[in-house]
Amino acid sequence: MDARYLERFLSDAARGATRSEIRELLKLVARPEIISLAGGMPAPETFPVDELADLLGRALREEGRSALQYGTTEGDAELKREILRFLVETEGDSYAGLTPDHLLVTSASQQSLDLCSRTFLSPYDAVVVGLPSYLGALGAFRAAGARPIGVPADAEGLRSDLLEERLVEARGRGIHPKLLYLVPDFANPTGETMGRTRRAEILAIARDFDLLVIEDSPYRLLRYSGETQPTLASLDRDGRVLALHSLSKILAPGIRLGWLVAHPEIVARLVVMKQPVDLCTGGLQQLAARVYLRAGGFAGHLERVRALYARQLDVLLAALERHFDPAWGARWTRPAGGLFAWIVLPPWMDARTLLELAVREYHVAFVVGDAFHADGSGRNTLRLNFSYAAPARLEEGVARLARAIAHLVREGRLRAEPGRGSASFVASDDAWLQATWRLATAETHD
Amino acid sequence: MDARYLERFLSDAARGATRSEIRELLKLVARPEIISLAGGMPAPETFPVDELADLLGRALREEGRSALQYGTTEGDAELKREILRFLVETEGDSYAGLTPDHLLVTSASQQSLDLCSRTFLSPYDAVVVGLPSYLGALGAFRAAGARPIGVPADAEGLRSDLLEERLVEARGRGIHPKLLYLVPDFANPTGETMGRTRRAEILAIARDFDLLVIEDSPYRLLRYSGETQPTLASLDRDGRVLALHSLSKILAPGIRLGWLVAHPEIVARLVVMKQPVDLCTGGLQQLAARVYLRAGGFAGHLERVRALYARQLDVLLAALERHFDPAWGARWTRPAGGLFAWIVLPPWMDARTLLELAVREYHVAFVVGDAFHADGSGRNTLRLNFSYAAPARLEEGVARLARAIAHLVREGRLRAEPGRGSASFVASDDAWLQATWRLATAETHD
Repeated sequence: MDARYLERFLSDAARGATRSEIRELLKLVARPEIISLAGGMPAPETFPVDELADLLGRALREEGRSALQYGTTEGDAELKREILRFLVETEGDSYAGLTPDHLLVTSASQQSLDLCSRTFLSPYDAVVVGLPSYLGALGAFRAAGARPIGVPADAEGLRSDLLEERLVEARGRGIHPKLLYLVPDFANPTGETMGRTRRAEILAIARDFDLLVIEDSPYRLLRYSGETQPTLASLDRDGRVLALHSLSKILAPGIRLGWLVAHPEIVARLVVMKQPVDLCTGGLQQLAARVYLRAGGFAGHLERVRALYARQLDVLLAALERHFDPAWGARWTRPAGGLFAWIVLPPWMDARTLLELAVREYHVAFVVGDAFHADGSGRNTLRLNFSYAAPARLEEGVARLARAIAHLVREGRLRAEPGRGSASFVASDDAWLQATWRLATAETHD
Repeated sequence: MDARYLERFLSDAARGATRSEIRELLKLVARPEIISLAGGMPAPETFPVDELADLLGRALREEGRSALQYGTTEGDAELKREILRFLVETEGDSYAGLTPDHLLVTSASQQSLDLCSRTFLSPYDAVVVGLPSYLGALGAFRAAGARPIGVPADAEGLRSDLLEERLVEARGRGIHPKLLYLVPDFANPTGETMGRTRRAEILAIARDFDLLVIEDSPYRLLRYSGETQPTLASLDRDGRVLALHSLSKILAPGIRLGWLVAHPEIVARLVVMKQPVDLCTGGLQQLAARVYLRAGGFAGHLERVRALYARQLDVLLAALERHFDPAWGARWTRPAGGLFAWIVLPPWMDARTLLELAVREYHVAFVVGDAFHADGSGRNTLRLNFSYAAPARLEEGVARLARAIAHLVREGRLRAEPGRGSASFVASDDAWLQATWRLATAETHD
């Protein structure tokens, strides 16, 4: 059994995703001397581990025998009650009409995305996504064999005028997408937020073209400045919005707990799809979420998390001002929340080349932006995370990144030859995607 | 948004699985007066909840900040070390050569099955399964759009002579299946175990026809009598066996932790498929498994679980002898381990009709066997679980089942009209499948 022999056994979906050939670079990133601004990881010091240990330990003793049994695919009824309470507390009375049948408990939002993909997308179905869009959503749509229709974004995310244009154009070619995906609050990767008007426009277009809308909101409660915007779900009058929530960024990702809010008929369909996927989300995960939601300290916890990330965002933006030479012509977003800022280098700069130099010689890592672009564009963009690295490392990370850019500017090596990176990156685009997955998700513990 | 309107949005996979229309029956099953022998649930009194609470509480305090962070898709390295140790301890030295690269940590075996399906099966690909086979495996294969090739089983499981026959026949029609699925130890649903010779024969056929083999072993460590047989994985010389293990039946299903042992090239492919599915198995789940595996009490725990289930199996078999009238012509398996026994009613009896009567009038539930048959046969079969209900309820459950059979025999209503059940079960086969899923998995807490 070798890789080539195995090839013949692979499904169409698996063939589409080859194994990363640039593991060496990833191994480098895992070294302690590297400052990684790549991963989308929350700050571990925010995890309320002692409180969770107490609450979960007590709950396991008291009700472990039922909690550790198989559960229903929909999710634990008591957890659903806590979630409904939490939604009203954080989103207000527009969420008071929800019932347990509007909720599906999942093993965090990546699973919600996968379930939505498999429930709504057959191979070659079209799905509308922003340029750029969250990597994991693109991955889930790709795994279902779907084809993306990319719509450029501005400082408010997906442009409604271009959305309509693209949909008309698609219709002209006989393509009728079923799904529209977006992260309206503090988007991954850009950090940008959609205003109320844009939200209403997009919802109206979704109605006109009969699209279901996935509103992915993992960062929504992490606002550090400005005014909260209404969710698309709260503006939706005809049950076409599927709202994805997760505890990963506001409590801890290792609990693997999220939920989806949608019309009960949609929830029922997703339940049927979840059965062969994992039978049910684990009782241990659900118990941890339930006892923490019930304990009543979530508001204070969120306050502390927001205060920390707001400080770190300030550090990042100040460092970018300080270390980035205006002569380079780079631009970046100034998010009001979330975990990410987004850098747009001048069009002639190649972020892949920059990453290799940055990791090998300057010991700093980030995520190259093209993996977030369904059309393969964005080679001159990159994503920086500000939630994980402590302020001093964040500042130093930006300083190193600036030195790497200066280095390449001096050498003129940022003039990318279209379609390829430097020699050691001859790897296929799939290998790049793989590497970016790893950088963007889990494997960059610095 | 109503059910009919939603239909247009569904993927091919989701369209295949309609919502259950016999929820009323399921609601009845959840009532306390019903004795359910339907679910595949372990006995909750076996869950070591106090020990887990202590171990997990301490571990969360000591290393919660790293454990609750995002993890690698492959699984936690320290957990993998514990799993490798556990495999050598339980399976012997033939497992000593395994490395962490042979392991993929999953959120229990249903996820392993789903990952295998998506990695190897494209729509219309063929997969070889026993008649009958585990419902959840059939569900995962179906969700991938695959077509099953059913091979009849005898008291040792899948018949190797018929396997070869079916494969030759398929080849003649230009069909080349890639995967063979089986549960060689204490199969779900029959409880039967494959002998060493049969295992070797099947592996030889898999080699001849170039099939990958999924060896699903959730019950393997639950042997109550007789001699342990070698795993297919230990007999495999060319890396074609994927071995699925799970803590669900030997520790607690709510932890949602399993692993897959396969050639590193296969593991690498499955990792790529797991990324868009859930990014990683939860750190909380992995921590719970790791601390329990490390604590050293697993062997003693397994001993106690086996002793309990062995007693309950004796109760079940004695009750069947006592209450089932030999005149009915029913046969049943006498498993040497696992959680299930399997009843074969005479061919003219219809287990769906029996289930409705049994639940409504006699307050006992079981799983109708046709859902385990990829070809729709098995309408005269049913599965009984003996791990969940305490001995007195197990005995009483069988007595009630016997009264329900006697009732139908008296009324002659067991003479099934081919292809349909009683009037209130006019529901489509999909609805039946749905109901059976629920009965067979989670939702029958009596």
